[in-house]
Amino acid sequence: MEKIEKHINDNRNNFIEELKKFLEIPSISTNPENKGDVKKCAEYVKDELKNIGLENVKVYETPGHPIVYGEWLKAGKDKPTVLVYGHYDVQPVDPIELWTDPPFQPTIKGENIYARGSADDKGQVFIHMKSIQSHMLINKSLPINIKFLIEGEEEIGSVNLDKFIDDNKELLKCDYVVVSDTAMFDHDVPSICYGLRGLAYMQVEVTGPNRDLHSGSFGGAVNNPINALAHIISKLKDDKGKILIDGFYDDVLNLTKKEREEYARLPFDEKKYMKGLETDELFGEEGYTTLERASGRPTLDCNGIWGGFQGDGAKTVLPSKAFAKISMRLVPNQEPEKIEKLFTEYVKKISPKSVKVEVKSLHGGKGAITPIDSPGVNAAVEALKKGFGKSPVFVREGGSIPVVNTFQTLLKSPTILLGFGLPDENAHSPDEHLNLNNFHRGILSIAHYFNELSKIKL
Amino acid sequence: MEKIEKHINDNRNNFIEELKKFLEIPSISTNPENKGDVKKCAEYVKDELKNIGLENVKVYETPGHPIVYGEWLKAGKDKPTVLVYGHYDVQPVDPIELWTDPPFQPTIKGENIYARGSADDKGQVFIHMKSIQSHMLINKSLPINIKFLIEGEEEIGSVNLDKFIDDNKELLKCDYVVVSDTAMFDHDVPSICYGLRGLAYMQVEVTGPNRDLHSGSFGGAVNNPINALAHIISKLKDDKGKILIDGFYDDVLNLTKKEREEYARLPFDEKKYMKGLETDELFGEEGYTTLERASGRPTLDCNGIWGGFQGDGAKTVLPSKAFAKISMRLVPNQEPEKIEKLFTEYVKKISPKSVKVEVKSLHGGKGAITPIDSPGVNAAVEALKKGFGKSPVFVREGGSIPVVNTFQTLLKSPTILLGFGLPDENAHSPDEHLNLNNFHRGILSIAHYFNELSKIKL
Repeated sequence: MEKIEKHINDNRNNFIEELKKFLEIPSISTNPENKGDVKKCAEYVKDELKNIGLENVKVYETPGHPIVYGEWLKAGKDKPTVLVYGHYDVQPVDPIELWTDPPFQPTIKGENIYARGSADDKGQVFIHMKSIQSHMLINKSLPINIKFLIEGEEEIGSVNLDKFIDDNKELLKCDYVVVSDTAMFDHDVPSICYGLRGLAYMQVEVTGPNRDLHSGSFGGAVNNPINALAHIISKLKDDKGKILIDGFYDDVLNLTKKEREEYARLPFDEKKYMKGLETDELFGEEGYTTLERASGRPTLDCNGIWGGFQGDGAKTVLPSKAFAKISMRLVPNQEPEKIEKLFTEYVKKISPKSVKVEVKSLHGGKGAITPIDSPGVNAAVEALKKGFGKSPVFVREGGSIPVVNTFQTLLKSPTILLGFGLPDENAHSPDEHLNLNNFHRGILSIAHYFNELSKIKL
Repeated sequence: MEKIEKHINDNRNNFIEELKKFLEIPSISTNPENKGDVKKCAEYVKDELKNIGLENVKVYETPGHPIVYGEWLKAGKDKPTVLVYGHYDVQPVDPIELWTDPPFQPTIKGENIYARGSADDKGQVFIHMKSIQSHMLINKSLPINIKFLIEGEEEIGSVNLDKFIDDNKELLKCDYVVVSDTAMFDHDVPSICYGLRGLAYMQVEVTGPNRDLHSGSFGGAVNNPINALAHIISKLKDDKGKILIDGFYDDVLNLTKKEREEYARLPFDEKKYMKGLETDELFGEEGYTTLERASGRPTLDCNGIWGGFQGDGAKTVLPSKAFAKISMRLVPNQEPEKIEKLFTEYVKKISPKSVKVEVKSLHGGKGAITPIDSPGVNAAVEALKKGFGKSPVFVREGGSIPVVNTFQTLLKSPTILLGFGLPDENAHSPDEHLNLNNFHRGILSIAHYFNELSKIKL
């Protein structure tokens, strides 16, 4: 690895110059007028994958934008196979007038390179490319088997990816999935994301009388669907943030002692966090820290509510219907289908007879976890130590990343998220940028990661 | 009165023919293109008031549509002065294609006359005109002092009436206000409305974090304004419909034994009522009947609620804000200002510290009551007995009628609502009609009412 490290260090600036070409292509997947650019970008990725030494490189057409695939499987059957996932498409640039420099003319200022896609996700995809290339140049081989899957529709919901994965399960079969499309916990804090929450997203529709009524003539006589809905919602969580749905916590995988220690180690300034949200008091399940509650524990939130009159002034309507969108973030081992069922049964149970209540499931997804003492994670720890010169932190993401769910469901492969972005790099905003130290340390880390993974006994 | 009765009976059909002319004028106050028609209708009313023998008849211009006034004050100072209020403007006719006959070509079918404004309110105004005229023709005088106030903006919120009343308090000074602009309780059930509920209409705005957040990344860490709002609403009323606001019931004028007996006498089919609303169970304050709850007891209803995502699908937003419009129907003796204060204090008290809560008062109005054993009401009982041949029922209206509130506040006069419409006469819908038996019995009743009122010792 010394030679590889030297090569990466010697080529630090070359890699940055090369990255610019990738960033110059305006591969905005949501804009029809950029369809040609997206295609051009797929070709660019294809050519790069060939250049760095991958084989069977192919652009797969989809009903939308193409998926690019390449592989190198000569490490031997006793070596792990790793699927690297990323995306070459980018967010739109509006409002363009808020950009200091043109979004597709990569500009280096201080430690950063500014361009749309620099952090999300071209820069991070490029980290993997340059790591592979460095191995190939020095050793003419890779220490592990690599499959490289780069899509062009991540910013529009990966609409054709699930089908592609489902259709190509054998092609994509792997021991680990590595995704570099997230951010580090903070500046100079190399991070391993080893868990994601799942989701059960419900809609509740409450019907009182069969039509909107005058609240003067009927107020007091019939139940009001908004009041009834509020009563229902108020019984989903208690005043201390505990979810009251029968059986909700039954399958929760509790945080281990080690995990809680890792949470406690995270450099988190709660006062600053509260100030940023302009809130006087945080709120959530008793007995857990804020970070634990926001990613390691399940929770329930109303995402939307509506009913009756929403305009200015005072319309005295007693509405017929009220609606709420209510989602639960699940932790690994909680099954969305089971939670949907428990939610529905509980809501029915607590609903008064004086209204009709309908419950629908709108969306669901499993959580994901790769145990922090598993070989794939241990290898990442070692790699980041070498790449960054310091031990990484362990984080769990509070949200869901649909593609990780797909990998888990279809490929049955654990996913490790090694993000090299930063939380304040404006991923979806004007002046998106990537810290070039992290770009460089990322290439080193991934090069080491492949090497560390090769030590795993399958 | 026998001669007057005979005159009214003899002229039954003439009165109907005369009414048609009034109904033919398309005095739609909300349509700018009918402005001339509204003016023409005011002139018609003015001419009629003169024709029937009123004095000082005058059309008062307003920034909107004119108010017509006339009086006859020669009954003597020992006789009561009654202000008759009504309106000559009508609702729009859309959707016009749903009318069986043209809305401004009055058409008699069976017992009914069909035309826009027949029930609301021209037919009822005409009842008073013909009663006065009959007295005048037979006796050359009226048994009481009469002031006649007919406005042209009732269907657009009586926007200029309050100022007119305030500016003309001396002109309009009276012992009683009589309004015929409501419906009888049911077919063949002559009704006296002696009470109205008041209103305190509030808006509650809950702010959680200072911006919309991703519910994955922040769910569990901060309080959600929709959940918090639901908790607040759920604490306003208990599961049995009792309002929990501290001090809310302190000033409630409880229903008297006699009032509750009158409520019990009302021909009310609860099963049919429930079927009409398609509800399996009615809901409201324990210990009171449905009709009592809907008009004789105070209540609290959410009139609107909104926050977060309301579109199709599953957007995982943890919103910054949530809003609710919440109104309380008050009974006489409850002061809206006091209730607004109690509401605000209570909501602040029950709000969690993890959100910011703002409470605004949007609208308020006092309830009104004329005791059912008061002379003005007793006179109405006798009059309706004679006009309809049966005893009337006593009802209280669950809603508020703003002009009654104005009369109460500015003129300090009790108001008696003698409605001759029916609940199913499509007051604001296509095929509005008025039952001609009720039109006739109304003229008889009002003629008797003036006579009965003259017996009151001031």
